[in-house]
Amino acid sequence: MFEAAELGRKISREEFDAMAPALRTELLDLQQRLREADFPVVILFAGVDGAGKNETVNLLNEWMDPRWIVTRAYGDPSDEESERPEYWRFWRDLPPKGKIGLFLSSWYHHPLVDHAYGRITTAELDEQLERVEAFEKTLADEGALIIKFWMHLSEKGQKKRLKTLEKDPFNSWQVTEADWRHWEMYPKFIAAAERIIMHTSRGNAPWQIVEGADTRYRSAVVLNAVKDAITTHMEARETAKSVAAQNKAKNKAKKSDKSAALASQPSILSALDMTQSLTKEQYTQELQEQRARLAKLYRKAKDKGVSTVLVFEGSDAAGKGGAIRRLTASLNARDYQVIPVAAPTEEERAQHYLWRFWRYMARAGRVTVFDRSWYGRVLVERVEGFCSEEAWRRAYHEICDFEEQMVAHGIVLCKFWLHITEAEQLLRFNTRSEIEYKKWKLTDEDWRNREKWGEYEHAVNEMVERTSTSNAPWTLIEANSKLFARVKVVRTVADALEAALSKGKKKA
Amino acid sequence: MFEAAELGRKISREEFDAMAPALRTELLDLQQRLREADFPVVILFAGVDGAGKNETVNLLNEWMDPRWIVTRAYGDPSDEESERPEYWRFWRDLPPKGKIGLFLSSWYHHPLVDHAYGRITTAELDEQLERVEAFEKTLADEGALIIKFWMHLSEKGQKKRLKTLEKDPFNSWQVTEADWRHWEMYPKFIAAAERIIMHTSRGNAPWQIVEGADTRYRSAVVLNAVKDAITTHMEARETAKSVAAQNKAKNKAKKSDKSAALASQPSILSALDMTQSLTKEQYTQELQEQRARLAKLYRKAKDKGVSTVLVFEGSDAAGKGGAIRRLTASLNARDYQVIPVAAPTEEERAQHYLWRFWRYMARAGRVTVFDRSWYGRVLVERVEGFCSEEAWRRAYHEICDFEEQMVAHGIVLCKFWLHITEAEQLLRFNTRSEIEYKKWKLTDEDWRNREKWGEYEHAVNEMVERTSTSNAPWTLIEANSKLFARVKVVRTVADALEAALSKGKKKA
Repeated sequence: MFEAAELGRKISREEFDAMAPALRTELLDLQQRLREADFPVVILFAGVDGAGKNETVNLLNEWMDPRWIVTRAYGDPSDEESERPEYWRFWRDLPPKGKIGLFLSSWYHHPLVDHAYGRITTAELDEQLERVEAFEKTLADEGALIIKFWMHLSEKGQKKRLKTLEKDPFNSWQVTEADWRHWEMYPKFIAAAERIIMHTSRGNAPWQIVEGADTRYRSAVVLNAVKDAITTHMEARETAKSVAAQNKAKNKAKKSDKSAALASQPSILSALDMTQSLTKEQYTQELQEQRARLAKLYRKAKDKGVSTVLVFEGSDAAGKGGAIRRLTASLNARDYQVIPVAAPTEEERAQHYLWRFWRYMARAGRVTVFDRSWYGRVLVERVEGFCSEEAWRRAYHEICDFEEQMVAHGIVLCKFWLHITEAEQLLRFNTRSEIEYKKWKLTDEDWRNREKWGEYEHAVNEMVERTSTSNAPWTLIEANSKLFARVKVVRTVADALEAALSKGKKKA
Repeated sequence: MFEAAELGRKISREEFDAMAPALRTELLDLQQRLREADFPVVILFAGVDGAGKNETVNLLNEWMDPRWIVTRAYGDPSDEESERPEYWRFWRDLPPKGKIGLFLSSWYHHPLVDHAYGRITTAELDEQLERVEAFEKTLADEGALIIKFWMHLSEKGQKKRLKTLEKDPFNSWQVTEADWRHWEMYPKFIAAAERIIMHTSRGNAPWQIVEGADTRYRSAVVLNAVKDAITTHMEARETAKSVAAQNKAKNKAKKSDKSAALASQPSILSALDMTQSLTKEQYTQELQEQRARLAKLYRKAKDKGVSTVLVFEGSDAAGKGGAIRRLTASLNARDYQVIPVAAPTEEERAQHYLWRFWRYMARAGRVTVFDRSWYGRVLVERVEGFCSEEAWRRAYHEICDFEEQMVAHGIVLCKFWLHITEAEQLLRFNTRSEIEYKKWKLTDEDWRNREKWGEYEHAVNEMVERTSTSNAPWTLIEANSKLFARVKVVRTVADALEAALSKGKKKA
C-alpha cells in the first residue's frame, strides 16, 4: 500500500519558493470565504513518527490565519473525559461551521497503537474502526469536510529521520523513547495502518497517503490538497443546496397526498390500552413505593459511578413536565440536571445537530433528564420539514449509534414516549387556556401541531420501530391518566437501574 | 449573631398547607417572567450540617420548574479544574440570564472549613473573603441577583437533628462521619461563620440567617425570601433601565464637547518613540534569536505546567495578526490557541461579560493568545457607548481582579498594546484597499473608528494607567515598524517566561 510513498519524491527550494506566495494567498483567501460557509473542515494527521505530522500542522497554522483554526492533540483522557463515553472528547473539540480543526493523534491513535502492541485483536480493531467510520459518516453527512493525511516514511527513512532530528539541537526534544520503540515495531505499525486505511477510506472521508521524507514535497502536497478539497467542497455544497431547494419544492407538492394516506395506517400507539389509570389512593401508595426504590437505587448507582440518561418525548400536554418532577423528587438536586430542549442556540446551530446533546453528557454517577431530545430530528423536524427527508432518514442510524455509545459506556438509558389521545389533548388544552398560571404553557404552535396529529403519530410509530433496540428500548407510557403515567415512569427507571446494577454485580 | 436563629420558631402543618398552593403558583409564575429578564439569579446555601441545605434545594427544585434551574455542589476539583484558577469552576457553572442557579458548598466552603480546622489563619480567611466579595460584586454589578442563606442550628439542635436523621432508614445515609466531627467542632465553625457573614454581607449580596430546626418554618422563610427577592430585583432592574436610558440621552449631548477637550491632552502613547525600527537584516537575525529562546522557554514552561496568556490590543491595522503569527511560529500548534474576540455569541451575551474569557482559560502548560480581549469593555464599548460609563469605570477593577487570579495561579500574563501613528494607519488602510487579498481586512468600521482617534487614544491612556500593575503590566509596542514590533513582542514573552521560570526555581 505504501510503495508509492517511498519513491523519494522531492521538490527543490526554488520550485517551492516559486509556488509558495500564490498558494499562501489562495489559502488565506479560501479561509475568508470558508468563514461564511455552512460546514466545518476536519483535517486529520496520522502516520509514521517523524514523517512530519507536527511540522505540517505548524505550517498550516503559520500559513493560514490561526484565528480560524483549532488544533487538537490527545494524550491520556482527563478525569472529566474518562467519566464520559470515549468520543465525548472529540465531540467537544469539533470546529464549528466556517472553521478548520486540525487533529493530531485523534480517534485513530488508540486503534493503531493498541493493535500494533497486540493489545487488541484484529476483530477488535475492526470493531473500533466501525465506530470511527460511523463518527466520520455522521459528520460528513451533515456537511463536514473531512480530509485525512497518512504521513509515510519507509523503515529506513524513519530511522534516518529520527537520527537527524536527534542531532538538531532545536528539535532533539521531539524524539522520544517511544519513537524508537515504535521504529523497532515498524512492520506491526504498517500492518495496522494498512488495515485502518483500507477500512476507513470512504468517499466522504478518504485517506491520502503522503510521502513524508522531503519537507517541501510533503508540505506542497498537503497544502495543495487542503486547498483543492476546500474549494471542491464549497462548490459541491452550493450545488447541493440548490438541488435541495428544488427537491423541497417538489416534495411539498407530494406531501399532502401522503398525509391523507397515512391517516388510515395502524400504529404502535393505537395498540396501547389508553384506559389504564390509578385511583388517587393507589397512586399515592405506588408512587411512594417506587420513589423509595428509586431513591435507593440511584444512590447505589451514584456510588458506582453509573450515570443515567432519561429521555422524555410526548405529545404536547402529555404531562412530561409533571412526570419529570415526580421523578426528580426522589433524587438529590445536586445529582441531576433537567435539560429543556428548545431551539438550538447560535453556537449549537454552528455544529452537528447531535453536538448539543453530547455537550450535556454528565460526569459519572449523575442523572441527566432531557425534556425533548435528539428525537426532535425525526419528529418535529421531519413533520415540519425543517430538515430534508434524507437527513431525518439517516438520523435513525445516527441516533442508534449515539445511544449505543452511551450504553457501551455503562450509562443507563431510558426513553419515554408519553402518549395521550387526541380527545384528551383537547381537554387539556382547554383547561390550560382557562387557568391563569398555566396559560404560558399553551402556545399557538401547540394548536398548529395538533392539526398534524396524524403525521406526528406516523412519525412516532416509525421512530419507535427504528430506534427501539434491546440496549436502548422505548417505553411507551399510556398517559391519559397522569397518575398512571407518573408511576409507570418512576417504576421503569427503577427497574432499569436495578437491572444495570445487578448486571454489574454478576460481572464482579 | 445567631441568637435570633435559635428561638425555636415553627409553622404548623395547617398553616403551611394553607400557604403552599398560592406560594407555589407565584413562584412558577415568577420563573416564567424571569425567563424574559436580563439577569441571572444566584442562590447560595451554606450553614450548619443538618440545618436543611439539601432539603431546601430539593424543595425549590420540586416546587419550581427544574428546567430553568441549575443546581451545583462542589467536591474536590477535577484535574481540568485544578489546572485553572480556582474560580474557573464557579464561572463555568454560572446560570445564564433568566435562569436560577442553586449553589451548595460553593465558594464559601473552603474558607469556612479551612478556618474551622485551623488550616488557615484569620488573616488568610479575610484574604479569601476579599476574593469572594470581589466575585459577588462583579456579578451583582452586572445585574445578577445574589441571595445567600445561612441555615442555622444550635449546638444541641444539630446533635438532635443528626440523631434523628441517623434513625430514619431513608435518610441515614446523609449523615457522615464528617458531620459528627464537625459537630464536635461546633464553636470553631460558628466563629468562622460569624466572620464570614460579617465580611461578606453586603448590600448587593446580603446573607439571610435562617433558623433551620423546623422544616416547614425554614422552607417557608426561604421560599418567601426567594419570591420577594426576585420580584423586587425585577422591578429594580426595570427602573434602573429607564434611568439608564435617560442618562444615556443626556450623556450623548455632553459627549461632543468632551472629545474636543481631550484632543489636546498629552498621553502615555504620545511619549513613545515611534521612529524605532529594524533593518531587514537585524530583523531576521533578532527574530530568529528570540524565537529560539521562546521555543525553549515555553517547552520548559509546558513541562512545569505553567500556562501563558497573551493579550493583544492595538489600533486597527497595527499589525496584531502578523505579530501573533510570528510568535506562534515558535510554538507547537498543539500547545497554543488563538482566540479572535469579536461580537459575543448568544450564549456569551446571556452571561457576565468576563464569562466568555474565563471559558477560554486553557489547561496547564498551554499558551492562549487573545486577539483583542476583555479590554474591549474599556476601549470600544466605552468609546462607542455600548456600555454605561459606570460599567466601564468599574471594569478597571474587575479586570485587575480577573488578571490577579490568573497570576496567583501561576499563569504568565503579557498584555500588548500595538501602537501606530495616525499617519501610518492611513498609509496601511490605503495599501489594504489596493491589494486584492487584503481587502477583506478593511471594513467601513475601521474608517469610522479612525474618526475617533482622539477618543480611543484617551481611552487607551486611561486603560494603561488603571490596569498596568506590577503583576500584570502592559507592554506598549511601537509598531510603526512592523519588524521592530514583532521582535519586541517575541522578546517580551520570552523575558516574561524566563522570569517566571527562574522565580519558580528559587522557590523550589
